[in-house]
Amino acid sequence: MSLSGIRVVDLTRVLSGPFCTALLADMGADVIKVEAPGEGDQVRGQGYLKDGYSWYFANFNRNKRSIALDLYSPEGRAVLERLIATADVVVDNFRPGVMDKMGFSRERLEAIRPGIVAASVNGFGATGPYADRPAFDFIAQAMSGFMSLNGRAGDPPLRAGPPVSDMVAGLYGALGIVAALVGRERTGRGEALDVSLLGGLVSFLGFHATNYFASGAAPPRTGNDHPIAAPYGLFATADGEVAIAPSSDVFYERLMRALGLDEALADPRFATNDLRVANRAAINGVIEGATRARPSAHWIEVLNRAGVPCGPVLGVEEVFEDPQVRHQGLAVTYDQPGGGEVTVLRLPVDFSRGPFRIRRPAPGLGEHTDEILAELGLSPARE
Amino acid sequence: MSLSGIRVVDLTRVLSGPFCTALLADMGADVIKVEAPGEGDQVRGQGYLKDGYSWYFANFNRNKRSIALDLYSPEGRAVLERLIATADVVVDNFRPGVMDKMGFSRERLEAIRPGIVAASVNGFGATGPYADRPAFDFIAQAMSGFMSLNGRAGDPPLRAGPPVSDMVAGLYGALGIVAALVGRERTGRGEALDVSLLGGLVSFLGFHATNYFASGAAPPRTGNDHPIAAPYGLFATADGEVAIAPSSDVFYERLMRALGLDEALADPRFATNDLRVANRAAINGVIEGATRARPSAHWIEVLNRAGVPCGPVLGVEEVFEDPQVRHQGLAVTYDQPGGGEVTVLRLPVDFSRGPFRIRRPAPGLGEHTDEILAELGLSPARE
Repeated sequence: MSLSGIRVVDLTRVLSGPFCTALLADMGADVIKVEAPGEGDQVRGQGYLKDGYSWYFANFNRNKRSIALDLYSPEGRAVLERLIATADVVVDNFRPGVMDKMGFSRERLEAIRPGIVAASVNGFGATGPYADRPAFDFIAQAMSGFMSLNGRAGDPPLRAGPPVSDMVAGLYGALGIVAALVGRERTGRGEALDVSLLGGLVSFLGFHATNYFASGAAPPRTGNDHPIAAPYGLFATADGEVAIAPSSDVFYERLMRALGLDEALADPRFATNDLRVANRAAINGVIEGATRARPSAHWIEVLNRAGVPCGPVLGVEEVFEDPQVRHQGLAVTYDQPGGGEVTVLRLPVDFSRGPFRIRRPAPGLGEHTDEILAELGLSPARE
Repeated sequence: MSLSGIRVVDLTRVLSGPFCTALLADMGADVIKVEAPGEGDQVRGQGYLKDGYSWYFANFNRNKRSIALDLYSPEGRAVLERLIATADVVVDNFRPGVMDKMGFSRERLEAIRPGIVAASVNGFGATGPYADRPAFDFIAQAMSGFMSLNGRAGDPPLRAGPPVSDMVAGLYGALGIVAALVGRERTGRGEALDVSLLGGLVSFLGFHATNYFASGAAPPRTGNDHPIAAPYGLFATADGEVAIAPSSDVFYERLMRALGLDEALADPRFATNDLRVANRAAINGVIEGATRARPSAHWIEVLNRAGVPCGPVLGVEEVFEDPQVRHQGLAVTYDQPGGGEVTVLRLPVDFSRGPFRIRRPAPGLGEHTDEILAELGLSPARE
């Protein structure tokens, strides 16, 4: 696998950091999760516990090993130092400054292991007026502008259902780490890097931000409507609704012909995208006049065959029954000691040489303490 | 910079692929954007055009070069082959099969350039029943389950404002590419990889998916409420609202004391998180009784000082005036030939050795055609 032979010391907990290191583990890295004795990562007790086991924990910690170390004790910190001396990467998601106070500043990490890649995932960035603030996905969604774009016109700003700021920060963290490993191959030098929940999600504003920069006009919330394209959205069918997104005039024509609405193509109210945006309710009404006559499955088949992007709105329980999702194997079931047969989501990168697999289940708290101590030439932990 | 010396042949257009290659370019790669003569990437004409220039295009194509090649002509494909022979990475976001039809199957790419990393960003995956369907962000949001989690209880499923499936697929693509480069250093072998809009966004279901797998119960839409934690959400203040997210009992206590609501801590209706979820309206009412008395800025200061995650809900126009966002320099203004002073979003990874910078503006269509032909030992393009 791509990252075989790369050792990662993982000082993270909860979500953004463990997602970051799960990505590295899924691509072959030896990720050693350092946990506090007795408690460990709090996610071990979070989410739905089936037979006492957290599948949430399994999802973000499969393919890792766990060592229990008390980092408040000099002995624990001494072992951590030995461990770092064997590592390629150290990742934390403490608040900025905590690593320094623990005696593991970036300078110290580089002294322990020249060429190390040291990464922090934090809330608002390593420096600046909010660097010390407690971070949480919901707050990053609120402050990044993401919520201001999410929701229906006239409704209040809305957070995204999934914790997007945690996930995006984890992805950026993994990307930065792996890029730094590429740079190290060439230069022999390490790298320190920081990513934040706020910064990652601000980057996701994308064209909404650049349109604002260019025009001076803040983008509105538009629900399922596209702010500058029509038709676009959810359309009622005989038995539900379908999402339809023709992305240009060519696709609009294909849509109308596939719906048997050729004559509406001549309607002057709908002659251009701008006119259709101005007459959105009218064009949507014409389209639903057609779509309501047949069930969703019919239209999904017909419109996709006509080259018009179209699909159902699936609930989570439907997603994993979908033929494409099943074909892609996006959910993976494996035997988790202590948890029975558990199901998790796989890394959604399809590598030809190193396809995703569960190389090892999620670790028990401190499951690999003695094994890792032995690798470091140290004697087993005192019970 | 981390990816200095890495050459990327970029056959992508619009959003997911160009975002993927912009990430590589921002980290130092020499990204050569291959565009059709005359038209180029359609995003050149999309978004708000200020003085005729698309800042949307600038955002996703800064730090790249452009070569105009007609890939429908044998001459154009011959030049592409010469270019690939000098590259480390090829990225496309065509529909599956198009690269094969153009004569650039994965086997052919490996023959042209042994050890190459070949990546595709597509809609639904390279194989499977929907592989050939036209893809679009909105459809991936609908089919991934993301929309089923986004929105308020009782309202219809809602797409996220930003095109999250495009952005997430771009990030996964960049991550897979860079990881493959790490693997190539060790083995000398290349890699082929695929990421999809659907697969990336399914991975973002995270604990919502694993809770469903474990419990069999599909997660509901809960708007700004946290499905299993209270209090949590937006709370009215004297002059607006604040987002507050205490993540545990400890934070709940801090919140109530900071609001001067110590006596509510003894209220049996609010004794545990489960009770507070059951009595969400009541606890929210008690909290708003306090928060309405003072302006948002007061509470943001007081609650953060007390260690409770709290912040304002910012519109896009407010985000870039925020002191932390300004300190972090998340928006960058530079001189764009043909576009004047343009503002874009920076890569939100803070590298200590290779900080983000605009090394070159977004390219004009074919701006570097002759330069790149010369690098390949070919004569300038015929006008």
